[in-house]
Parts: sequence; structure tokens; C-alpha cells
Amino acid sequence: MFKINDYTKSREAFLRAEKVIPSGIYGHQGPTEGCYVPVEAFPLFSERAQGSYFWDVDGNRFIDYMCGYGPNILGYNDPDVDAAAAAQRKLEDCVTIPGTKMIEFAELLVDTVHSADWAFFAKNGNDVTTMAVMVSRAYTHRKKIVFFKGYYHGISPWTQKIDYAGVTPEDVSNNIYLDWNDADALARTFDENKGQIAAVIAQPYMHNNFMDNTLPEKDFWQKARKLCTENDTVLIIDDVRAGFRLDLAGSDHYFGFEADLICFCKALANGYNVSALCGKNFLKNAASSLSYTGSYWLSSVPFAAGIACLNKLKALNCPQLLIEKGTRLKEGLIAAAAKYGFDLRVTGVPSLFYLRIADDPSLMLHQEWIAECVKRGVFFTNHHNHFINASLTDEDIAETVAVAEEAFSVVRDRHS
Amino acid sequence: MFKINDYTKSREAFLRAEKVIPSGIYGHQGPTEGCYVPVEAFPLFSERAQGSYFWDVDGNRFIDYMCGYGPNILGYNDPDVDAAAAAQRKLEDCVTIPGTKMIEFAELLVDTVHSADWAFFAKNGNDVTTMAVMVSRAYTHRKKIVFFKGYYHGISPWTQKIDYAGVTPEDVSNNIYLDWNDADALARTFDENKGQIAAVIAQPYMHNNFMDNTLPEKDFWQKARKLCTENDTVLIIDDVRAGFRLDLAGSDHYFGFEADLICFCKALANGYNVSALCGKNFLKNAASSLSYTGSYWLSSVPFAAGIACLNKLKALNCPQLLIEKGTRLKEGLIAAAAKYGFDLRVTGVPSLFYLRIADDPSLMLHQEWIAECVKRGVFFTNHHNHFINASLTDEDIAETVAVAEEAFSVVRDRHS
Repeated sequence: MFKINDYTKSREAFLRAEKVIPSGIYGHQGPTEGCYVPVEAFPLFSERAQGSYFWDVDGNRFIDYMCGYGPNILGYNDPDVDAAAAAQRKLEDCVTIPGTKMIEFAELLVDTVHSADWAFFAKNGNDVTTMAVMVSRAYTHRKKIVFFKGYYHGISPWTQKIDYAGVTPEDVSNNIYLDWNDADALARTFDENKGQIAAVIAQPYMHNNFMDNTLPEKDFWQKARKLCTENDTVLIIDDVRAGFRLDLAGSDHYFGFEADLICFCKALANGYNVSALCGKNFLKNAASSLSYTGSYWLSSVPFAAGIACLNKLKALNCPQLLIEKGTRLKEGLIAAAAKYGFDLRVTGVPSLFYLRIADDPSLMLHQEWIAECVKRGVFFTNHHNHFINASLTDEDIAETVAVAEEAFSVVRDRHS
Repeated sequence: MFKINDYTKSREAFLRAEKVIPSGIYGHQGPTEGCYVPVEAFPLFSERAQGSYFWDVDGNRFIDYMCGYGPNILGYNDPDVDAAAAAQRKLEDCVTIPGTKMIEFAELLVDTVHSADWAFFAKNGNDVTTMAVMVSRAYTHRKKIVFFKGYYHGISPWTQKIDYAGVTPEDVSNNIYLDWNDADALARTFDENKGQIAAVIAQPYMHNNFMDNTLPEKDFWQKARKLCTENDTVLIIDDVRAGFRLDLAGSDHYFGFEADLICFCKALANGYNVSALCGKNFLKNAASSLSYTGSYWLSSVPFAAGIACLNKLKALNCPQLLIEKGTRLKEGLIAAAAKYGFDLRVTGVPSLFYLRIADDPSLMLHQEWIAECVKRGVFFTNHHNHFINASLTDEDIAETVAVAEEAFSVVRDRHS
């Protein structure tokens, strides 16, 4: 099978990047980040992308299971989304007063998302998780926020960890951290902090890095919802990563409950730059009361792209399609692993799957296997969940399973 | 002179917007915001834009002196920037690993901006002011930040006011607020907080809303720079609003000093969505140490737009061009006011001018005059600084002065 052995131009580009950019590449995408090691197997710079694939600067093609860490839900360069965006760009984008595409996109979200009576648009997922917390505090006149350990809600100081660089104790002094799925602890926390908890913020299920992803236990969300309601506390769902890959009506709807505020970003517009906070009517005045805006937040091109994207997601019944594709891939990968005596755990919803070889606490066997996949043109990462997009074909899935099988065989040979 | 009396479609659109968006329109652009009253004179939704103009949904054309609140620096739909962006879009935009346009843009900024040894890209001005504060805290292992009253550094909780909705006392507990231009107070503050001040953050001059804009007094910046250096404190310049309208080498360079960190956003890419933190080498490791990233932060299209924009700004010697255009406009407006006995104050650098009719503490005469200008197709706002763009023609300036003169005459008639 084809094996990539030339990342020369990626490495040359990185040497240039290091001179003028802190870390060379920042975020998960950089070689100093945990979900990438061992980095020598990975390309560092891309040149073009189409559908399920990207090509690196050395001309190597990858079947991409990261999808830009989420935004690519229809396939790179989707013709319908790009046409809508280009048509809007000819008219206007970032202008002094907004265009009516903003209204149209808000109407479409309110029509689509079960918990949404209104929508507010920004640029980062972080913008809308931060706004959700501020809306909750403005509404309740309380300060404390409950998180579930393993959470990721962006990069503002209030949501970082106390031992992270640049974070002060005051930034996180109103945060309470509980174990995921522990409804009893949540009930106790409400008792111990009567009238003080502004919001509970959570992803719809635990899909964090470096751990098997964990679905909500039976009735967990129903219990949490009831506790929030009884305590006049706002329930915030951070659907930035999972949004529209589980259910177009929102991942709260997928799990059978209703959030008060729901945060969207990645899959909203197939890569065009927009995020959204949606919420219930009782919080609309609190949202209006904030001083909250940004330079590009009324730009029309991403709204046009978002409208085209969401309409196409509806036409395709996309979450179901992605879950089916993910399920076929999952079954193929588990069978390929078993052939060589590996127990591959594929966790989370299959449209957003997390991979781990079991019985390997060091994670080294897993990293070796991922590296062998990447070197054969299947772009997985080591310790981050993966993303399915709608343009992924049966042939792509078959090729991925074949690559995975060869990679398992190489790792088995090396260790037998 | 042509007078607009039909905003029917704007008002109809706003009624739709109110149903699904908190406040209908958020930010400065909305009718509930202070810099807009009296709102009846203003359009609320745009349909298209080109060069110096936008057209509202009722078909009215405006000469636009807000420039999208800054991003429009070359003219709306600049053909060179749009061509570069479209060419990049055909290849790739928001992909799992970055493209090399990111490196190229960082190299160009480092080559252009006097204080920049490196660049880090994000999406909002707020992302990079927040990062600047976190880098300063990570580097100094201190917590306190000095602000100058009248500041605006974005919308994160740490930079909001304690009495604003959704803000906790802890969010702002490490903030110290001083009067602008008061170097003695800054010196005293350093003495009283020895070894505790992580950073001083400031705009290059005071260009806030609802007040005449104030340039730095002689030697203010040199004194502030010296105090920061002596106290191992990071000097952050928030050039989000003024950047590239004063000096392509940075507004610190324009005022004859060097910042340690400098924040850019609005004028970086003529409306394409990107912001940048640039800094000195001694802070590069601290920048690398942060956990700081976002979903769209490595997208290539805005980088391609930014490269084309900055190269064109250089070719045009844009800041000088904008200051010349602004100066001609300023002289015309002041003369038009004088004809009708008004003392119009035009403050700030002329590429970024602030307007106020003097001897009118209620600001009502001023608001009446602005309204009469807007109703004649010149888009000023009441209490926010204005922006010049490179496509503004001599004819636009002449038309603006003629409109302003007629507006002064109407206000004079009404009050004599």
C-alpha cells in the first residue's frame, strides 16, 4: 500500500513559521500539542482541499477525519455553500449596518433548533460560551458556574484551568467542577450553594481529549434539567463540537431534554466564520442587556453560507447520514483490529468518534497505529475525537479500513 | 438637495429581526445604542456596498464614514483583495492543518510593523487584547493591569466595567484605572504596586465614544515606556481601531515609541475576518505557553486577503493618503459650520476623526445636525469616531461638505 515518506516541504515551511509565529503553528494543529505526537508521521502544512480530502504541501493526499476540527461537515469546497457565499460577496460583506441575511439565518435557526427562540451571532465558539455565562449571570444575578471535569468550553480566562499560563485565581474563582454523569453530586452542589449557581454548562456528552468519550447515563440529563429548573439556574449546552452531527434540532433534543442556552459554531457554515448563541425567550432581555459585539459579527457572507449549509444539512438529513457512515467505519475498524489481536475502542456518537486501543495504558501502541495510518494517507489524530463529513464515500471508508488493517499488521509485527 | 424620507423596508426588516435576535441588531449598529440616537434618521439594514458607499434596503445611497466600524480601509469590494481571497478559496480555507499563507502573512507583518518580531492570528480584536493580557501575566507572573479611563479593549469580562450586565467583581478585581495622559499618576501607581503590575494596556491615543478624542501629550508615551521598562511591565498597545490608519509600522511608531505587544484587527484585511497579536521576541515563549486557539483561526482565505490588503496599503502609502483626505474633509466641515455660527470640533487624527458641535453640553444640536446629514446621504454617527477609506474621492468630500453645510443651515434655522 502507498506509504508517504516525504514531508520535506512541510518541515521547511515549519522552520519558516517558527521564526515569525509563536510555536510555529498554534492550537491542536501544532506539533507541540498532545493530540499530534508522534509528530514525525504527520504533515504540517496543507495546499488544497476538496470533499473528504486535503493535500499537503508535498503533494500527499489524506482522507481527512478531522474536518478542520469540525467545520467541514458537507465536504471541503461544497459547491452550494460556496456559490451562496460568492453571490453574497458580490453585494456586500462587512458593512456599517447589517444586511437582512442576518435575520434570515436567525429565522432558520429558530425554525430548526428545538430550544431556540432567538439567535445571536459571533465568530468563535468561545464568544458564545462566554456570552452564555454572562447572560446567565445577568439573568440570575448570581456568580457561580458548574462545569463537568474534562470539559472544554474555549479559551477565555474564565474557562481555563487555574494552573494554565496567563490565568489568575480570580478568573476561575466562581467555578465549581463536578464529575460527568454524577447527578447526585449535582443535587448536593445545588443544596450546598442555594441561590448562588447562575448556570450549569456542559457538552451534550463527554467528548474530551485523552479519554474514551462517554455518553450521558440514563436519565442524567433529565435529572440535571429538573435540578436547574427547580433552582432557577440556566442550563447551557455547549454544542460547538457536536452540533448538527447528532441532531439538527440540537444535541439536547438528541438526548431528550431542552437546554436554556445552546452554543453553536463549527458545523454552522461549512467553514465560513460564524458562531451562534441560541436561547429561550425568558433569557432574551438578559442577552440584550449585555455589552457584547465584535468587528466582523454582522458580516453577511458567513450568514449566506450558513443558510445554504443548514438547508443542505436538512435536505440530506445529515446527522443520520453521518452516523450511518461513522457506524460503518467503526465496524470496519474494530474488525480490522480484531484480526491482529487488538481491542479497538470506538466511543462517542459515530459521527464524532474517539479511538483508543485498549489494554495499552501508555497509549504508545495506539500512537504507533495512528502514525502508520497517517503515513498511508488516512488522517486520524492520536487523542482527539474525529469528525465525519457528508462527502465521505463508501470507497473512502473501504480505503480507510484497508489502511487501518495494514497499520495494525505493522504494529503487531513490530511487537510480536 | 436630495433628502431621504423612506426607510420603510429598514423598519419592516427590523420588526422581523426583533422577533428572532436579541435587540434586533446588536452592538453599536443597533438602534438602542448611544452612538445612533436619534435613530429615526438612520437606515437599519444594508443591501450592497461598493467603494465609499453602501445602499440600504430602501435603495438609498450613503457616503459611509463608518467603514464597517473600521474594516473598510481600501473601499468596499476592493478588487485586488477580493481576487486574492477568491484565488485562495478555490484551493482551501478552513482545513485541518494550516496553509502557508499564514506564514507569509506573519512574515509580512513582522517586516512592516516596527514592534513585531512575531505574529499570532485570531478572529476578534477581543481575542488578541485578551491574549495580550494573558501573555503579560504568563511572562511576569503578576496579575494587575493598568487601564486608562475611557478605554475600549473588547467585550471579555476582564475588560468590561463592574456595573455592566453579566460581569462579576472578580472579573475586574485586578484592574487599575488611571486618567489618560497622566504620567505622574502612572509613576505613583507603579510605586504603590511594586512588582505587581503585569501590563499597561492603552489605545495609541484616546479615541473613545462620547468625548473629544485626545492625542498623547508631549512625552507621555516616552514616560510611560520608560516606566514600563523600569518596572519589567509589558506595554500593550491596542491598535484594533487606529491600526494602519496612522502608520503602517504601528501607531506606537507614529507616536515615537515601541510597544511590547500590539493588537491589530479591523483594517488588517479590508473586511475579511482576521485579527493579529504582534510582539517582541522576549514575549514569544510566553505566547507559546498559552492554551489559546479557535475553530477558524488557521483559515487561509483571510490570510490571503490580509496579504493583498497590506501590500496595497503599502503601495498607496495609505495612512498618509487617509490623513490628507481626512484633513481636507475636516477643513471643509469646520468652514461649513462657521458659516452658520457653529463651532465644530474635529478631534483625533484626521483619518479617524471625532465630531462634536461645541457649546452644546446636551449634545442635542449635534444630534440634530448629524441626523440632517444622514437624511441627505452622508453616514456619520453621533458619538463615535469616524473612519476614512482610500476609495473616498474628492467629489465625495465635496458632496459631504455641501450636505454638512445644508444640514447646519437647517439646524440654525430651527433654533434662531
